[in-house]
Amino acid sequence: MKKAIVLLSGGIDSATCAMIAKEMGFELYALTFDYGQRHRVELKASKALADALGVKRHTILHLDLRGIGGSALTSDIPVPKNSGASDKGGIPVTYVPARNTIFLSLALAYGEVIEAYDIFIGANQVDFSGYPDCREEYLLAFERMANLALKATVEGKGRIRIHAPLLHMSKDMIIRKAVSLGVDLGLTHSCYDPLPDGKACGRCDSCQIRKKGFLTAGIPDPTPYAH
Amino acid sequence: MKKAIVLLSGGIDSATCAMIAKEMGFELYALTFDYGQRHRVELKASKALADALGVKRHTILHLDLRGIGGSALTSDIPVPKNSGASDKGGIPVTYVPARNTIFLSLALAYGEVIEAYDIFIGANQVDFSGYPDCREEYLLAFERMANLALKATVEGKGRIRIHAPLLHMSKDMIIRKAVSLGVDLGLTHSCYDPLPDGKACGRCDSCQIRKKGFLTAGIPDPTPYAH
Repeated sequence: MKKAIVLLSGGIDSATCAMIAKEMGFELYALTFDYGQRHRVELKASKALADALGVKRHTILHLDLRGIGGSALTSDIPVPKNSGASDKGGIPVTYVPARNTIFLSLALAYGEVIEAYDIFIGANQVDFSGYPDCREEYLLAFERMANLALKATVEGKGRIRIHAPLLHMSKDMIIRKAVSLGVDLGLTHSCYDPLPDGKACGRCDSCQIRKKGFLTAGIPDPTPYAH
Repeated sequence: MKKAIVLLSGGIDSATCAMIAKEMGFELYALTFDYGQRHRVELKASKALADALGVKRHTILHLDLRGIGGSALTSDIPVPKNSGASDKGGIPVTYVPARNTIFLSLALAYGEVIEAYDIFIGANQVDFSGYPDCREEYLLAFERMANLALKATVEGKGRIRIHAPLLHMSKDMIIRKAVSLGVDLGLTHSCYDPLPDGKACGRCDSCQIRKKGFLTAGIPDPTPYAH
């Protein structure tokens, strides 16, 4: 079986993306980042999802991006509520500088060691198009760079492929896809600013996109929301 | 003054590269990585160099690449001695998977937060041409990707430039350049496998390249070697 690295955050997109990789016949090596994110509860979600997906190995890498800051997710900048950011365009303050570049770079390193050259990322440029590192043109440039960066690729042992199967799907399409593949969406976590009891706030951009997605898909949202 | 990020490892190349950035009129923000390297003594060297260079800020980011492994520098793979690797071609076992990609990605993130878009790296493709991520073609691909990855570049606030002023210089040229700019090479550290007392082993590839460089440059090497 061919190995794939799947970036698993604990949200709907990465869970669905990982399931698509599994459907394609890959053996899954899940990689999750403990980067000092405000919504650390997603680490727990990633573990539950990794188990449910039957991954070969689940690795959590520690990397403290709070030392860099610059985002509402890794510093004291407040997470906006009811902002409608996803409708307004522009890049929201929840943007984490260079996050996908950092995560994909670490995936390259891990992949080179275990000889996995297929990397799956749940990037999506439809609903949250504000993030520059979720766009196709960025991902293609990353892939090109990656194939020049590694011993394995330069020596011809493998060729890096960045797979982003959800890139052009809307959230409701992703939710329907997830359900059709048997992803347990009750295990996923989306909220950027969960309450101390772990409940989703219901008001941050990520909660609002999730709610709207389930509504449009006509599928009941299993999330316990505070609001 | 325009800000620049300088990747400062504690070796001759990064110290010289940082001094070149200073000579060009940049205000220096030095970034060093504590990545679980065997030669942790380079962290101490980086601090001394940052002071000597008069940097505006010196940041050491923690990132445990031992969790990934795959290199003689981050795992139990022995560091080769008297291998002549630099003459033989091929990629040595001291190669750390995706290291420059990871370091440059974190530099992008830090730079975006402090609004620094010029990044200096002491990459060199002459003496240690085995490392794929020290080649011009790789660095250009990284720069291209970076300009698609960030909020700052996409919004037109800045344009990432990866500066690698030592790329085509031999080690003896770099040493002569360093001396002419007043870099205190006695503060630099090159050895991959230092002895418990901090002395350079004198036999690893990095020590051998350093010794040969000083010899060719006709400049006395201030390093205390064990061998």
